[in-house]
Amino acid sequence: MNTNRLESFSDGVLAVAITLLVLDIVVPKPGSGPLAHELGTRWPSYAAYVTSFLTIGIIWINHHAMISRLRGVDRVILMLNLVLLMTVGVIPFATSLMATYLKLGHGQTLAAGIYGGVLLAMSISFSVMNWHILFRKHHMLGERIEHERRRLILRRSIRGLLPYAVATGLAPVSPYLTLAICAAIAVYYALPLGSGG
Amino acid sequence: MNTNRLESFSDGVLAVAITLLVLDIVVPKPGSGPLAHELGTRWPSYAAYVTSFLTIGIIWINHHAMISRLRGVDRVILMLNLVLLMTVGVIPFATSLMATYLKLGHGQTLAAGIYGGVLLAMSISFSVMNWHILFRKHHMLGERIEHERRRLILRRSIRGLLPYAVATGLAPVSPYLTLAICAAIAVYYALPLGSGG
Amino acid sequence: MNTNRLESFSDGVLAVAITLLVLDIVVPKPGSGPLAHELGTRWPSYAAYVTSFLTIGIIWINHHAMISRLRGVDRVILMLNLVLLMTVGVIPFATSLMATYLKLGHGQTLAAGIYGGVLLAMSISFSVMNWHILFRKHHMLGERIEHERRRLILRRSIRGLLPYAVATGLAPVSPYLTLAICAAIAVYYALPLGSGG
Amino acid sequence: MNTNRLESFSDGVLAVAITLLVLDIVVPKPGSGPLAHELGTRWPSYAAYVTSFLTIGIIWINHHAMISRLRGVDRVILMLNLVLLMTVGVIPFATSLMATYLKLGHGQTLAAGIYGGVLLAMSISFSVMNWHILFRKHHMLGERIEHERRRLILRRSIRGLLPYAVATGLAPVSPYLTLAICAAIAVYYALPLGSGG
Repeated sequence: MNTNRLESFSDGVLAVAITLLVLDIVVPKPGSGPLAHELGTRWPSYAAYVTSFLTIGIIWINHHAMISRLRGVDRVILMLNLVLLMTVGVIPFATSLMATYLKLGHGQTLAAGIYGGVLLAMSISFSVMNWHILFRKHHMLGERIEHERRRLILRRSIRGLLPYAVATGLAPVSPYLTLAICAAIAVYYALPLGSGG
Repeated sequence: MNTNRLESFSDGVLAVAITLLVLDIVVPKPGSGPLAHELGTRWPSYAAYVTSFLTIGIIWINHHAMISRLRGVDRVILMLNLVLLMTVGVIPFATSLMATYLKLGHGQTLAAGIYGGVLLAMSISFSVMNWHILFRKHHMLGERIEHERRRLILRRSIRGLLPYAVATGLAPVSPYLTLAICAAIAVYYALPLGSGG
Repeated sequence: MNTNRLESFSDGVLAVAITLLVLDIVVPKPGSGPLAHELGTRWPSYAAYVTSFLTIGIIWINHHAMISRLRGVDRVILMLNLVLLMTVGVIPFATSLMATYLKLGHGQTLAAGIYGGVLLAMSISFSVMNWHILFRKHHMLGERIEHERRRLILRRSIRGLLPYAVATGLAPVSPYLTLAICAAIAVYYALPLGSGG
Repeated sequence: MNTNRLESFSDGVLAVAITLLVLDIVVPKPGSGPLAHELGTRWPSYAAYVTSFLTIGIIWINHHAMISRLRGVDRVILMLNLVLLMTVGVIPFATSLMATYLKLGHGQTLAAGIYGGVLLAMSISFSVMNWHILFRKHHMLGERIEHERRRLILRRSIRGLLPYAVATGLAPVSPYLTLAICAAIAVYYALPLGSGG
């Protein structure tokens, strides 16, 4: 299988997932209070929307870079890609969960932990796929990449796991911290500073 | 019509259907109980999500293999493809139905039977389409495939129906069994073991 | 603009609209009655799902045939295409409306009339677009098509309006009739009989 | 990165966002009143649907024109594109918000202001992206465009901001005015009159 249809299907799933995020921003029911106040209390929804949107957008960019190195795909790559898409597919749920519970007096730790955990799972499956491509299928790479360079790419990919692990681990300390770290990661990679990632 | 736009439309439908599955995982309403407990009781949703996600993903891979053999499509192929997509389009509903009723004291048999039945209908329409392509339109195949080889491909495709028929038939015995078999089929084809399928 | 991106965007909208149809099939709330009975009473949802799915699918096929005649698109074609997509985008709503009201003692006539009317509006905007392409922009056609042949294509496209007009007009007589005619149109075009359409 | 995958991902997001708009048109609950009356009171939903649909459609056309000038994309363009898509992704929410509150005695000013503000934000991010492409990355343009011509394109793009700023600013005067102006902008660009935009 060539990489075209893999890209087109992955683009489709990422585009749908990133656009479904808006369904988590709910219009306040008329009569439940002044609209400005009602919208104001929902700021976790907006923060989570921006964070998840940027995160999926960055995954899309990195996914493109990863696939563009290949000149063909085999079944193992297809399956690793499917697992990656599955973790991305869960992001709208995890986003909604965290936005709903962040400010409540119960469940907020678990909700933040799940949010961080889903992003962590996504990065892990991305790194595993990258490792598989770079070190197990390097004969399928479009052009020969030196061992040193391949290690560098993979190391960068793995280094990206760390902040998500920290964000997830800090959920019991403060769920706000989890969201803030995830948002910071997204912004870091979005800014030219993080453009090497 | 060439196969490009058929693939692009089918990829679109499959990508939307696979991503809509997440809408079946509902965020527990605050105040309905401890979040951990509420999330825990929803395990059928997660099991059904993973099963349906892998199943649609595998259909996508097999669909690609089937279409890539063709150098053109006619109206009959377009219509068989539409029927196949219709059965895939129903999967999010069937998934939600089974996840909702699996643990209840009523309706669980019917719900599991419908879930298995939808996956069975999907495999049947896939096999019919494969048969049509391999034996009725073999002059539209990109390269000549020997009769023996075509029979082999079709036989494999039909053999894939059996476990779904068993899963559906066992719903009255135990709806859990239906889900377990469907999950096992998905995992079997996802693992390198099933890579011949 | 070349036709590629027009097709890719249209395919996307059609693929999302056709897959969103499943959201109109609602899982019965546990406890509202025996599941078999609850599912049985919802047959209008299934009939409407199949009808709308086939209808959008056929529009996709005809849309492809229409666009494939062009070697380029201008702003008027883009806008007519946008209007066509807008009518298709409304189909999930009209489908849900009719499925909800078909069996009730009030509103069923209006709901069926709206359903037929939306499909009619879709066919009209398709015909207008076809007319514009065939008679106003025939210098943008990929290959010269004789005047007689162009008239034939357009006449066939316009003839397709009639049954939808009849279906809409008969809503006050019986909303079931409206659905039945729309379903019959979809099946007619889906079968090889209607393949000339 | 070449522009193909950027276009395919953007097309996907725009196609999903434009099709999700229909979810804001809610089927009236049976028993809440005569259907004709219930549907009639929802006219803000239909007006907002048409306005937002045309607006996203026009963004898609302009986006295509903007990207088609490039022969490659860098990370800054990808990020500016992501921000643009994020503002488009919010349109279904803003549409639903305005349609819900437009006729109510409270919140309607804020709702209309947010709707106008989201469309304004979208145009601003479009203009920023256009400016970046035309003046910072003009070495990535497919063909050399004269400075005067580039200024002209950008000026037209910026001039498009004004009516949205006016629409947003007039929300306290009348939310109907905001919707009317946004609808007029969409129709203006959709008609051949606005085809220079």
